Amino acid sequence: MAKTAKNSKKKVVLAYSGGLDTSVIIPWLKDNYDCEVIAFAADLGQNDFPSEKALEEKALATGASKCYVLDLKKEFLEDYVWPTVRAGAKYEGTYLLGTSFARPLIAKYQVKIAQMEGAYAVAHGATGKGNDQVRFELTYAALDPSLTVIAPWKDPKWEFNDRESMIDYLDAHKIPHTGISKTKIYSEDGNLWHLSHEGGILEEPDKEHKYDMLKHTNTYEKAPNKAGYVTISFDKGTPVALDGKKMGAVELLEKLNAIAGEHACGLIDIVEDRLVGLKSRGVYETPGGTLLYKAHECLEQLVLDKETMFEKQKMAMTYANLVYNGQWFTPLRQAMDAFITETQKVVTGDVRLKLYKGNVIPAGMKSPYSLYDMNLGGFANVEMYDQKDASGFIRCFGLPLKTRALLLGKKTNVDFGKTNVKKK
Amino acid sequence: MAKTAKNSKKKVVLAYSGGLDTSVIIPWLKDNYDCEVIAFAADLGQNDFPSEKALEEKALATGASKCYVLDLKKEFLEDYVWPTVRAGAKYEGTYLLGTSFARPLIAKYQVKIAQMEGAYAVAHGATGKGNDQVRFELTYAALDPSLTVIAPWKDPKWEFNDRESMIDYLDAHKIPHTGISKTKIYSEDGNLWHLSHEGGILEEPDKEHKYDMLKHTNTYEKAPNKAGYVTISFDKGTPVALDGKKMGAVELLEKLNAIAGEHACGLIDIVEDRLVGLKSRGVYETPGGTLLYKAHECLEQLVLDKETMFEKQKMAMTYANLVYNGQWFTPLRQAMDAFITETQKVVTGDVRLKLYKGNVIPAGMKSPYSLYDMNLGGFANVEMYDQKDASGFIRCFGLPLKTRALLLGKKTNVDFGKTNVKKK
Amino acid sequence: MAKTAKNSKKKVVLAYSGGLDTSVIIPWLKDNYDCEVIAFAADLGQNDFPSEKALEEKALATGASKCYVLDLKKEFLEDYVWPTVRAGAKYEGTYLLGTSFARPLIAKYQVKIAQMEGAYAVAHGATGKGNDQVRFELTYAALDPSLTVIAPWKDPKWEFNDRESMIDYLDAHKIPHTGISKTKIYSEDGNLWHLSHEGGILEEPDKEHKYDMLKHTNTYEKAPNKAGYVTISFDKGTPVALDGKKMGAVELLEKLNAIAGEHACGLIDIVEDRLVGLKSRGVYETPGGTLLYKAHECLEQLVLDKETMFEKQKMAMTYANLVYNGQWFTPLRQAMDAFITETQKVVTGDVRLKLYKGNVIPAGMKSPYSLYDMNLGGFANVEMYDQKDASGFIRCFGLPLKTRALLLGKKTNVDFGKTNVKKK
Amino acid sequence: MAKTAKNSKKKVVLAYSGGLDTSVIIPWLKDNYDCEVIAFAADLGQNDFPSEKALEEKALATGASKCYVLDLKKEFLEDYVWPTVRAGAKYEGTYLLGTSFARPLIAKYQVKIAQMEGAYAVAHGATGKGNDQVRFELTYAALDPSLTVIAPWKDPKWEFNDRESMIDYLDAHKIPHTGISKTKIYSEDGNLWHLSHEGGILEEPDKEHKYDMLKHTNTYEKAPNKAGYVTISFDKGTPVALDGKKMGAVELLEKLNAIAGEHACGLIDIVEDRLVGLKSRGVYETPGGTLLYKAHECLEQLVLDKETMFEKQKMAMTYANLVYNGQWFTPLRQAMDAFITETQKVVTGDVRLKLYKGNVIPAGMKSPYSLYDMNLGGFANVEMYDQKDASGFIRCFGLPLKTRALLLGKKTNVDFGKTNVKKK
Repeated sequence: MAKTAKNSKKKVVLAYSGGLDTSVIIPWLKDNYDCEVIAFAADLGQNDFPSEKALEEKALATGASKCYVLDLKKEFLEDYVWPTVRAGAKYEGTYLLGTSFARPLIAKYQVKIAQMEGAYAVAHGATGKGNDQVRFELTYAALDPSLTVIAPWKDPKWEFNDRESMIDYLDAHKIPHTGISKTKIYSEDGNLWHLSHEGGILEEPDKEHKYDMLKHTNTYEKAPNKAGYVTISFDKGTPVALDGKKMGAVELLEKLNAIAGEHACGLIDIVEDRLVGLKSRGVYETPGGTLLYKAHECLEQLVLDKETMFEKQKMAMTYANLVYNGQWFTPLRQAMDAFITETQKVVTGDVRLKLYKGNVIPAGMKSPYSLYDMNLGGFANVEMYDQKDASGFIRCFGLPLKTRALLLGKKTNVDFGKTNVKKK
Repeated sequence: MAKTAKNSKKKVVLAYSGGLDTSVIIPWLKDNYDCEVIAFAADLGQNDFPSEKALEEKALATGASKCYVLDLKKEFLEDYVWPTVRAGAKYEGTYLLGTSFARPLIAKYQVKIAQMEGAYAVAHGATGKGNDQVRFELTYAALDPSLTVIAPWKDPKWEFNDRESMIDYLDAHKIPHTGISKTKIYSEDGNLWHLSHEGGILEEPDKEHKYDMLKHTNTYEKAPNKAGYVTISFDKGTPVALDGKKMGAVELLEKLNAIAGEHACGLIDIVEDRLVGLKSRGVYETPGGTLLYKAHECLEQLVLDKETMFEKQKMAMTYANLVYNGQWFTPLRQAMDAFITETQKVVTGDVRLKLYKGNVIPAGMKSPYSLYDMNLGGFANVEMYDQKDASGFIRCFGLPLKTRALLLGKKTNVDFGKTNVKKK
Repeated sequence: MAKTAKNSKKKVVLAYSGGLDTSVIIPWLKDNYDCEVIAFAADLGQNDFPSEKALEEKALATGASKCYVLDLKKEFLEDYVWPTVRAGAKYEGTYLLGTSFARPLIAKYQVKIAQMEGAYAVAHGATGKGNDQVRFELTYAALDPSLTVIAPWKDPKWEFNDRESMIDYLDAHKIPHTGISKTKIYSEDGNLWHLSHEGGILEEPDKEHKYDMLKHTNTYEKAPNKAGYVTISFDKGTPVALDGKKMGAVELLEKLNAIAGEHACGLIDIVEDRLVGLKSRGVYETPGGTLLYKAHECLEQLVLDKETMFEKQKMAMTYANLVYNGQWFTPLRQAMDAFITETQKVVTGDVRLKLYKGNVIPAGMKSPYSLYDMNLGGFANVEMYDQKDASGFIRCFGLPLKTRALLLGKKTNVDFGKTNVKKK
Repeated sequence: MAKTAKNSKKKVVLAYSGGLDTSVIIPWLKDNYDCEVIAFAADLGQNDFPSEKALEEKALATGASKCYVLDLKKEFLEDYVWPTVRAGAKYEGTYLLGTSFARPLIAKYQVKIAQMEGAYAVAHGATGKGNDQVRFELTYAALDPSLTVIAPWKDPKWEFNDRESMIDYLDAHKIPHTGISKTKIYSEDGNLWHLSHEGGILEEPDKEHKYDMLKHTNTYEKAPNKAGYVTISFDKGTPVALDGKKMGAVELLEKLNAIAGEHACGLIDIVEDRLVGLKSRGVYETPGGTLLYKAHECLEQLVLDKETMFEKQKMAMTYANLVYNGQWFTPLRQAMDAFITETQKVVTGDVRLKLYKGNVIPAGMKSPYSLYDMNLGGFANVEMYDQKDASGFIRCFGLPLKTRALLLGKKTNVDFGKTNVKKK
């Protein structure tokens, strides 16, 4: 391809982290697509996220023509994490979805920058085995279907198999790579909400785990012997205050992470089903998030009626799938959010939690919308409800069973159990 | 009422515990229904369950003409608890259903004894406020709709409001009541699977709980500083061995209760929705059961495919409702069991758990039906799966989103977020 | 009972129809509750609904102190029927819920009038066997729990078993009852949306039905030999125009009823499960409503994505239960409506239907939000989608099955069918 | 590749129909994969299915080394269609899944023959746009993951775009193609259960359809003026007799097809969502099948309890997705079948249907397991059920709503409607 002036080159916007993979991808894109690369890095509260200046310098040194660095922490929490907490969505019943909602947000701003810059393509560094590629590419498709997607790891021209060959490539291009280690035992992904660990010994599910890779969370054994307490206040399902003090989303979660991590709360170790067909094993640290989910659940027990709770819990399973699969920008997720928002009108109140060596224990809760009334549900006398009503209730509730027994008689084949009934 | 010879009196079979309520109900039934009372007590592993002899003597001294005592522990676990564990059913996502499945079993044998004895009625001592009345009466309706149901607490002739008036009644009838206390702070219900606590300070959900009433479980603080380990083996979803040693259901659960209780595992504290309309608060101890659920979940993560797991988890929510509501002997519960049994064909294997101060931590698992293979799901090379396939997958998977974006264009109203994107 | 001045009597607001039952209930309430009776009749488009004047005269002649008559047709359609159509809710998959949503609306205005009038009680004429009692009483409970509920048919003092004894009672009270027939073969309930028939020969499900009681709908055989056509336009799921002409809800449904009834559309004959435990059989005429549901379904096929449609169809089953059970004023119904409203943002367009002797046949549809594009879904060439992508898709989609087959091998017990494969 | 003796060539088993596509694929496979091609044709009751002899001659003339022809009609109905009817599964609520279950059956025998013949690969003629490719390839993956899959339409070497170029190719290879037309307006797929039509004018959903392509079914207008009647008997959910005469699956469906087709029953015209991302439009003839579904539904209304029916109807939606998606040989489908089989134990009885110009009308049904009893559900007196019980029932059922109204009071924001209540 003939050399053209830099300005006339086609532009590609790359989701950039400054790590090894995306450092290689910058020169590789230029080599293989004859393009100008615009790096974009999102600050979602990753551990050791570099300063904007450092990151920009690194990107430019690596060959990018420009580098956008955006602090998306607040938007991340308010518009992606909080709705998922309100939904009570846990993937396969356990995983708090840490990485899942970060990708659509990054991809959204990538598209926005691509449109601002007039770029023809977007690129990401996710491999062809995991879930992140799906989350990136689905978002691109939903938000700007005219953009070309470049996914180097799945590109026929991509030829790297290990970290070593990638570092050699950087050396060959005379690109500095200080701060990038040649080996990595675990694969890590983190943001303000969580930190995930995969790979290494984790790939052997029959082995016990030493949890020597934890960064936010104490091991159970190292947690203090004295319990900690925290009170979380919710307004319509959204956490708004800690121990009675109003604070913004970022500060609130940072504080919760600190106390929960100290008390070893929020560690899970699971085998999960990836979207792309395989099971994988991960250890996840979600200290503050675990407290938020728990407190939110407690409050919902107090204020939601039984039937709403049942349907909401079922919906949460599907919601979790959507988030996990990267289907954030979909009509179904939006419709579910409308349902959830409606249910949250009464999810206002305070939940106090006791934290003790990994345990998160309810320690008192109250709400102006509480449906619990000890004079009704308890053992004291109730005016409005006569115990005799219950007989009528049960006769109606059991009528189909009784009718069935009468009409079908022996045909229902009652099994009268295996224990011998004999009177000595 | 005219005296008749004892033999010619109509018979009533009473679910009898030897506690205050059913001790009063025996003479009360005789006074009010001019009947012979046959007591039936089921040993389900309640704390301090008396000897058969002691119970029979007490029942006869209280006025019963006969007393059946049956050890139903094995049948209880094998035919009621294990199916529920295999289902993974937790009521409202948390409660392990302790009392719920005991009632249908007791009621079933009550019906059987009533048929053997030619009784015209069955009676129980559950109040008109709780769930147990429903579980008793639904089972009667399903198994023998011709039986009359007598529920003294809901009977217009019942006139007792407190323990004191009941004890006065016993005194007036010269019925001994040693061992029955005049006061009770918490209301308790227990069996081999669990112990529940309700009432007293528990009725104030805004107060922290002291857990001074626990019987099977240590408080978190009193649990040993050294972790315990246990390996549970499952065969088609049923627990069959502990630490490699095969054992029967009763022994297995007793041993699990002991170790889990020591390590403070299996305590929950919730507000739940009763079937009969109100919220109530309870603290539940299910030490061994909590380990069984956890181990079973871990094993299912390893051996069930994603779609089966998803549908099974949704079904578990409905299954839990049925169990909680006393709808055990229903066609729907049976159909769900058929589904679950089919899924359990591969739930065979061993799960090792670490127990530490209330935490139940997976510490290794294996199964001949494992769908996890570190050479496929991990980072090493896979023959059968080409990373490039993922691109085709995502293009197809995302095609509806892309089509939608293309056809509807601006109509989809993409919200491009609130974070300002500016390049300095 | 001592006579008091009329003004000082306690007031009861009765849901009044002018039929035999509520004509008896007016004097019966005065006799048994020493109260003033305020009649309230709602015009929902019942067949032969009398004039306001006639109804008022009749109520006063029967002993009511006042009679409210409200035309609720518009509110009925816009706020109760249309949301249910948008939900696509059919009870047990077939019944279009005719009577179900009428009751909450009537009960709501009954409560409103009771509050305006300072009445202490509300009364209705539904029996203790059907669903309507539940719908009335649940609405009272939800909207004003302080009101006393009087349900004469379930009142211990009620002593009527047949129409004859009720007419005798009117005669004894010298209350005129012209226009009220002594016998009734079928029990009917109707409004602008539908007409239901129960009782008589309908109670024998093994008999073929003659459909001699139809009022809105031709029998199939009597429908014209020439097909009719109608085009219904929807705006966000709400029907707004017929054959291109905008019109209000009432006019639109009246016109649809006329054409659909002529062509014998909208007749169903089912056995259904009542809320209160029993199966009943009914024949329902919903001519215009059937067209609306069909047209709405067609349009949704065109504009909803697959996953939204799937979840919405499942939700419709629960929505139908809520409506059928009278749980209209519940948080769950409101949350579901929020979900549905969100999905309906794109349900705008026109659907043309051909009506022919009971058949409702799609005859062309279009929408600015159509997701169908013949250049994508058809056989012509598509730029954005490469047939080879499908191979990658299927390899990923099928990967769990392949992995399972590889890892479990013979353990999966493939059944290779019963047909003999032999090559001659 | 060096020429080797024919016998030593690698073998490929092709799903063969004798139509244009698979006639081209035989020589194309030999050209491109240097293999021996074994044709396999399954008789599933396609219209004009040739004789075994004719088909074999044609396959051999086209270059196949061998041709298996199997009559799979009985297995198709008994093991694939009947379970789906018992499930009541309709894709997206309407489509009776005609083609969907044929593919797994064909693919299963293809795998079996490949194993018998020692073939290394299986091939099919489905395109990369539709669902059938998925159904074929998923079955191969599930039943023998070691087989190579060849899908010519998605093969980089495949170069045909239209029927003409394919016929030229046959001519160039001197392969006869009598009976194969050069043009085709609609794309058709049929078997004993159904006939589908896609393409042509069908791709324009805003046009009315002329139904000039129907083969099994009369148009509504041409159906007889006199109704037909048929009685279908089921044994545990399986159709076993017609008009009282026991008969095998194939005969039964053939007879049902004849009478239903005559009366214009079983035609649907829908827009559906393909698995691979796009909407497509189809017209489907399923005459006999429509009667079976309807009769089965009627019988279930009579014998299933409400809760079982509700769960089964929800499950049917997922079951339909599995069948549609080709996920027949999956653990989830098997588990669902276990559930369904359990529910069908009572689905035994006779349903009489009236057929009239497209309408399928219930005309009497009975079952020894009927839960309908006119003395209970009807208006006559019932001993076991007291109307007063209903009051207690409703008070309990409505208690959560009442409690909520009491506790939350004004916070629930009752909307008292828009109709003005004024007394003149």
